[in-house]
Amino acid sequence: MSAPIAHGGGVTAAAAVFGGGQEDWLDLSTGINPCPVALPEIPARAWHRLPDRHLVDAARFAARDHYGSGEILPLPVPGTQSVIQLLPRLVGADERIAVTDNKVAVTDERVAVVSPTYGEYARAFASAGFAVDAVDDLAAIGAAHRLAVVVNPNNPDGRIWPAETLVALHDRIKAANGFLVVDEAFGDTDPWLSLASRAQQLSNLIIFRSFGKFFGLAGLRLGFVIARENILERFEDWLGPWAVSGPALSLAASLLRSDVSPIHSRIEERSIGLHAALDGAGLRIAGGTALFTLVADARAGDIYTHLCRHHILVRKFDYAPDWLRFGLTPDPVADRRLGEALQRFER
Amino acid sequence: MSAPIAHGGGVTAAAAVFGGGQEDWLDLSTGINPCPVALPEIPARAWHRLPDRHLVDAARFAARDHYGSGEILPLPVPGTQSVIQLLPRLVGADERIAVTDNKVAVTDERVAVVSPTYGEYARAFASAGFAVDAVDDLAAIGAAHRLAVVVNPNNPDGRIWPAETLVALHDRIKAANGFLVVDEAFGDTDPWLSLASRAQQLSNLIIFRSFGKFFGLAGLRLGFVIARENILERFEDWLGPWAVSGPALSLAASLLRSDVSPIHSRIEERSIGLHAALDGAGLRIAGGTALFTLVADARAGDIYTHLCRHHILVRKFDYAPDWLRFGLTPDPVADRRLGEALQRFER
Repeated sequence: MSAPIAHGGGVTAAAAVFGGGQEDWLDLSTGINPCPVALPEIPARAWHRLPDRHLVDAARFAARDHYGSGEILPLPVPGTQSVIQLLPRLVGADERIAVTDNKVAVTDERVAVVSPTYGEYARAFASAGFAVDAVDDLAAIGAAHRLAVVVNPNNPDGRIWPAETLVALHDRIKAANGFLVVDEAFGDTDPWLSLASRAQQLSNLIIFRSFGKFFGLAGLRLGFVIARENILERFEDWLGPWAVSGPALSLAASLLRSDVSPIHSRIEERSIGLHAALDGAGLRIAGGTALFTLVADARAGDIYTHLCRHHILVRKFDYAPDWLRFGLTPDPVADRRLGEALQRFER
Repeated sequence: MSAPIAHGGGVTAAAAVFGGGQEDWLDLSTGINPCPVALPEIPARAWHRLPDRHLVDAARFAARDHYGSGEILPLPVPGTQSVIQLLPRLVGADERIAVTDNKVAVTDERVAVVSPTYGEYARAFASAGFAVDAVDDLAAIGAAHRLAVVVNPNNPDGRIWPAETLVALHDRIKAANGFLVVDEAFGDTDPWLSLASRAQQLSNLIIFRSFGKFFGLAGLRLGFVIARENILERFEDWLGPWAVSGPALSLAASLLRSDVSPIHSRIEERSIGLHAALDGAGLRIAGGTALFTLVADARAGDIYTHLCRHHILVRKFDYAPDWLRFGLTPDPVADRRLGEALQRFER
């Protein structure tokens, strides 16, 4: 058992301290598109019946065409988190770990996570008894690492690695019989970074894609794994039958074949609005992606509290007290609300 | 890796052999209520946002009141299948199993599954390297078993065990430091059988409840685990955050507080219609629950094929060639269709 990580979406907790009802809060603490697409119709049978092969295949073929994974039919999973939980098994956690009554035996097996990044990777491996090296550079990944994780673009700083660099990293890791996990959760707005089209040639690569962030449907719990068939079969076997809901598969089959250019335009418009609000308040932008912006400021903790008093929730980081991550606002009214609140901050 | 088990819902496969479009088939191969409840409104935020504590708690409190679990707040999971997959870990699979490149080391640890029953229990334990004893009686469960599974009422024969009998079994298993899993997937129509109200007193008991079968919403992927807090915490930790979709939690919070008596009445009416069709064809009813009926007949294989030619799919069993399981039909028209097809069978 390990302590839960603080994630975005904590309006309930923030409202308990700073007042206001849930609907009074402007929640900028996540990296989810705040303008969800209109829901296509979900056939009654998707709710009623167990998701059958037909429905799963419709989602897989749509995902293949959308992500450009060529011969690979991406495996739908109930959120990327569900497969993060399974990564320790991929590198043999079952072989060597003693988990008894919450006591975890320490092994000498190591994995590398390019950090800082999404915290659940380190948590999943640490609770399975692995030693986790939080490396800040790809060069620090070595033959001792059974698996390495790169989030590309990275969350929260927006660092990116070109495809060629990651292919070279894969080949190096593979030579030592390790695996490379590339999490492209925020990759939809930078499609040229994706390794999806090359995955069939890269036998020790595992790509995670998030469905909900870009489409604004995080409640669906849907992600895809792109990897060679032998790896997908193992995840499928561990998850068991019917792991993904019928409505999620139905929406994926439909939305992944839709014209997504209006979504890109809207995200870009919202990103411009957010940057204007942050610039107007004189904040320094230290990184980000189209779906969130990272601010670096020595007064970050005070700005966080000040914004909470205005019922605006952003994301702070224990490990980087100078950082604040701002998600997109849903509309220009919210941009103005954020801008005005920031301008009232007494520096 | 283990071979998938044939489950209900295989209309796609049957249509490939016997013709007809999906919608031409009368699918009686599952135990799902064929008359889904009307969907209550799902708030936009349940689709859009990650399911937060507020939404999870609303579902848990509703489940507690509905299932009568007293102090225990049932844990929502993405289908009971997801926790069947985790049961081997509960009894220490991680301690002793070597899983490398699909080769599973055999251990001398044993579990008992009261059989015949739902096949995924034996599959999950066997692929984790356990020896699975398919026992036909509770008396055959002994101190050598780290865990025992009883499906109550049982699928497909409808066998039931009174609560007192299972409490005594629990106490016996607990004395040997084992666990008892009681799967109440088909328990909604026989609520007096449930152990939910006694789970807080039974420290080594784990109850599984299915949401989708009774409400006719199997595509949702939702189940609940009822057990003492220390056990629920382990499942929660293994599943990771946001395991259940927002729409599923929202529907659970709403439907588990609704008046379910019309659902009971409808299921009873459908069950009477099904029995009349089977009786009219002179078939012998060997067991079942309100949601399905088991027929025993020496010509079961031929009846199965005959029904497929009429585009009616029922469930057959490799291990019991005399058995056929019939799910409920959605309406009297379908009862007549089934009855007429059965009467045309040349005995």
